[in-house]
Amino acid sequence: MHIGLIGLGKMGFNMRQRLRDAEIEVTGYDRNPERTDVESVDALVAKVPAPRIIWVMVPAGEITDSVITDLAGKLEPGDLVIDGGNSKFTEDQKHEALLAEKGIGFVDVGVSGGVWGLANGYGLMAGGDPDRVQAAMPLFDALRPEGPREESFVHVGDVGAGHYAKMVHNGVEYGLMQAYAEGYELLEAKDIIKDVHGTFRAWQKGTVVRSWLLDLMVKALEEDPGLSKIAGYVEDSGEGRWTVEEAIAHAVPAPAITAALFARFASRQDDAPAMKMVAALRNQFGGHAVRAPGARDAGEQPNDNQK
Amino acid sequence: MHIGLIGLGKMGFNMRQRLRDAEIEVTGYDRNPERTDVESVDALVAKVPAPRIIWVMVPAGEITDSVITDLAGKLEPGDLVIDGGNSKFTEDQKHEALLAEKGIGFVDVGVSGGVWGLANGYGLMAGGDPDRVQAAMPLFDALRPEGPREESFVHVGDVGAGHYAKMVHNGVEYGLMQAYAEGYELLEAKDIIKDVHGTFRAWQKGTVVRSWLLDLMVKALEEDPGLSKIAGYVEDSGEGRWTVEEAIAHAVPAPAITAALFARFASRQDDAPAMKMVAALRNQFGGHAVRAPGARDAGEQPNDNQK
Amino acid sequence: MHIGLIGLGKMGFNMRQRLRDAEIEVTGYDRNPERTDVESVDALVAKVPAPRIIWVMVPAGEITDSVITDLAGKLEPGDLVIDGGNSKFTEDQKHEALLAEKGIGFVDVGVSGGVWGLANGYGLMAGGDPDRVQAAMPLFDALRPEGPREESFVHVGDVGAGHYAKMVHNGVEYGLMQAYAEGYELLEAKDIIKDVHGTFRAWQKGTVVRSWLLDLMVKALEEDPGLSKIAGYVEDSGEGRWTVEEAIAHAVPAPAITAALFARFASRQDDAPAMKMVAALRNQFGGHAVRAPGARDAGEQPNDNQK
Amino acid sequence: MHIGLIGLGKMGFNMRQRLRDAEIEVTGYDRNPERTDVESVDALVAKVPAPRIIWVMVPAGEITDSVITDLAGKLEPGDLVIDGGNSKFTEDQKHEALLAEKGIGFVDVGVSGGVWGLANGYGLMAGGDPDRVQAAMPLFDALRPEGPREESFVHVGDVGAGHYAKMVHNGVEYGLMQAYAEGYELLEAKDIIKDVHGTFRAWQKGTVVRSWLLDLMVKALEEDPGLSKIAGYVEDSGEGRWTVEEAIAHAVPAPAITAALFARFASRQDDAPAMKMVAALRNQFGGHAVRAPGARDAGEQPNDNQK
Repeated sequence: MHIGLIGLGKMGFNMRQRLRDAEIEVTGYDRNPERTDVESVDALVAKVPAPRIIWVMVPAGEITDSVITDLAGKLEPGDLVIDGGNSKFTEDQKHEALLAEKGIGFVDVGVSGGVWGLANGYGLMAGGDPDRVQAAMPLFDALRPEGPREESFVHVGDVGAGHYAKMVHNGVEYGLMQAYAEGYELLEAKDIIKDVHGTFRAWQKGTVVRSWLLDLMVKALEEDPGLSKIAGYVEDSGEGRWTVEEAIAHAVPAPAITAALFARFASRQDDAPAMKMVAALRNQFGGHAVRAPGARDAGEQPNDNQK
Repeated sequence: MHIGLIGLGKMGFNMRQRLRDAEIEVTGYDRNPERTDVESVDALVAKVPAPRIIWVMVPAGEITDSVITDLAGKLEPGDLVIDGGNSKFTEDQKHEALLAEKGIGFVDVGVSGGVWGLANGYGLMAGGDPDRVQAAMPLFDALRPEGPREESFVHVGDVGAGHYAKMVHNGVEYGLMQAYAEGYELLEAKDIIKDVHGTFRAWQKGTVVRSWLLDLMVKALEEDPGLSKIAGYVEDSGEGRWTVEEAIAHAVPAPAITAALFARFASRQDDAPAMKMVAALRNQFGGHAVRAPGARDAGEQPNDNQK
Repeated sequence: MHIGLIGLGKMGFNMRQRLRDAEIEVTGYDRNPERTDVESVDALVAKVPAPRIIWVMVPAGEITDSVITDLAGKLEPGDLVIDGGNSKFTEDQKHEALLAEKGIGFVDVGVSGGVWGLANGYGLMAGGDPDRVQAAMPLFDALRPEGPREESFVHVGDVGAGHYAKMVHNGVEYGLMQAYAEGYELLEAKDIIKDVHGTFRAWQKGTVVRSWLLDLMVKALEEDPGLSKIAGYVEDSGEGRWTVEEAIAHAVPAPAITAALFARFASRQDDAPAMKMVAALRNQFGGHAVRAPGARDAGEQPNDNQK
Repeated sequence: MHIGLIGLGKMGFNMRQRLRDAEIEVTGYDRNPERTDVESVDALVAKVPAPRIIWVMVPAGEITDSVITDLAGKLEPGDLVIDGGNSKFTEDQKHEALLAEKGIGFVDVGVSGGVWGLANGYGLMAGGDPDRVQAAMPLFDALRPEGPREESFVHVGDVGAGHYAKMVHNGVEYGLMQAYAEGYELLEAKDIIKDVHGTFRAWQKGTVVRSWLLDLMVKALEEDPGLSKIAGYVEDSGEGRWTVEEAIAHAVPAPAITAALFARFASRQDDAPAMKMVAALRNQFGGHAVRAPGARDAGEQPNDNQK
């Protein structure tokens, strides 16, 4: 089997290697000349034998959109495009329709596993026509961990379902990380706890909360005790937002996942307008002291708890 | 009528004035020599005719506790102590028992109205024996706004009930402020909104959300457009915490009030340990860029949304 | 002045009356023959003198969309359509463009005040071209409460800004109601509180939490003590969802408003799938007893707190 | 080694077996005559050789308290009591002091692993004097999974620290379960997802969210597809409440864990007073339809989204 792979970043680069380790021939393209196998997408299309499978592994949104639009003009009927990025599921039907006009197939795949996927294998969630999913099965089998296929691969439904499942996966991931992180902060705050790192380390085997994320917490604390080198500033990349939007659209209460999302937003604020207003209101009704921006170390007056 | 008033801070000072305006004689004591009427609590006790009513209006917790303990040794059977501060309701039974040993009565009163109470009158919630509450009614009538008594005064129940009602009042207040503040931040964040201050100002009459707190928001924005002089740093003084603890004790879901409490906690954190951990985890599994503490302006890599 | 008003439901019916009370001539149309002034929109258009102002006050979404589309085909250049419903702000630009093709103007207005607006006047938030907003000012002045215009009317920005401000208004309203409601439930749950209704009644004057919504709580408790006639089942009509979506889009933490939205979702669930899963998990790891659907009164085993 | 074990419920029964499998002699006592080895605690004390180790594994709270109080009167100086239940950490110092009066040592141990601990081993968190912890190490080594000790055992600090760590463990566990459960409900709600069970199954290997709890979700869905036999009613046993209380006491924002706790509270309410009040308020200001208790299937009027 010989496929094309567009995007050789943190994910795609490792995936090329894992596919090759499984004796699948991969022609990769990336703008980075040190990583790419060919000079252009045209060259990639020329090199991969028809009917082609082209796996797209580039940042979601505009870049994925432009790559797939470009492929629609370059591929042939019978070819298959797989979007393995974190595209929003609503993009998938658009891409499927665009490609279908040219007789090109489309499958969306959510890929989980991060930078560890090369060694561990990736968890995969596919959406699309059963025949097309089947056609790509050798790739899925190469990418996923060894063992029963159903423990690391699922054909979730029609086009869009793979990315939807991955979106929910990432939303859940937000919630899991937040729960562990709240526990971490509380243990750090409590003086009777003399070994926070050791506590997490001891949760790795036997406990109800054991997980891969927990193992990574332990590793992070080993590499940087007290996390002294890292700021409490957390980006979000879309899937958490979409998960909450979908929860709202379907009237599903999702307070824990949403709490995780909002905690990220708040982590990026130095001086939240909302909290400026709460401080202003307390000052208005109760005469409670306020702080000037930048002066976060001033104290309140002793009488402040009466209003 | 002639009463004693201990504590002439932001609340007590105004309350003395309002009581005097109602032709109630008040002997006030405060450590601040510019505010006090007498040199000591002893002098206050000596000056107020028996059976005495002594209104305590000092910070909740240790100070209130020491003042009431002190009074227990100085007052006479038949006297009455009123705690008008924001004491935790669990303190009240302790104080009642302490005073009862000496034949001294006790009433707890939640007092709301802040620095505006002098002009507007205070909302009052009392707990205690009906006869004792009745004995203090002239004070309550002087302190509360004009109009029907039931619109600004309630005898909630036995000792502790007044402070409990005030605690819930303040918990609700946390939630109300947070809701308005979130709306404020969202309006500020939206480019099509050209007049945030004007929007709040226009909510003052006719709308469903009109309230006194809203009026204060408008006033705050008039005094400091954009709240440029105030940091997004918000203290909490106990009642919000107790409200959530009581919600938990009674299995009452209180997500909005709790959100307000946690938002205050987060407003006081520069670099939350929990969010350091979430950042560390994202770095561990996805290779996502992290920031060093203090370097909050760095950017993530473009490929970061794939894991 | 003589305007057309389409939609004579709970809001429009009262607004027609209030406009007429201010000596504005109103020709109203509604599908309900008992309320309508004319037989059809055509008849309404024929009766209102050009340049016409047509106020649309129908349910947001498809109905508003079809009414405005219909008007685009029936009105003349120079006419003005005002959408006073709770349309999503993203609809407004679409409607403006559609009408602009025919030379017809568009203004969006958020209207707050509910069924009390007839007596109290409405709070109004307008978006659109300043000249068009000015043209409709006599209507706004008639609808809003007496007193300074800026306390009940605001021109928030261009088309869409009025509905955006109303959306945030309603999001805030969700949060306010939830905060009061949590306080209500906690007071109801606490045995030492002997007069919950009286407590809310006493918050009406003087306290920090006094508001119109609080007055309505008191009224509701007067009409139905203990709320025995009303189920804890709460609908939501869109603006709360949009507010949270916009908060997410702008990375604004909105935990209190979101808590209120999710509480409504949860109130409509008899047997939430998420909580079925949590129960199933507890059973899996700890052998904790579960209940069959419908059997909500069974107890757990005494030893259940060990896992 | 020969120890006593009081409490042979879901946890203790399995622990006795696991200790015996490691060739530790165990004399167990339980009120259940089918499970106990001796007729009474006196008989147990008589049978275990001094210096004794007595492991208490009974429900937290009053039962644990009475068992330890009883032991204080029956054991000898030099003996050691281990509380392995889910006692609140504040109980531990009390028990330590009580036993210390008699020269008896005390160690608190949080034990995680549930009904699977017999096969998998338990995760253990100990608090207490180092010598006493060391004395019990053969027990810990027998109970925990094979492999490096630090991956399943930690000496967290002085007395109370073990139970504190276990409390946080359980709080985190609440958050993790809630996050997965929200994802489950959302996947169930989305029509394009054709295989919810398969999706969770496929998350077991390779994905970022893989964990033991996830494995149990898959098992639960295998045993009861759609969870049709289980109600969405979830008890809580204390540790989640204490975790939130401790978060509040230390000003640690814990929104995800708290969301999980409140979701459990809400799952047990048929008709929440708070939501009755929100429904009542919507009716008051907007004339929105309400439902009578028990009539949860009625609809709202179409015009309800205008207020």
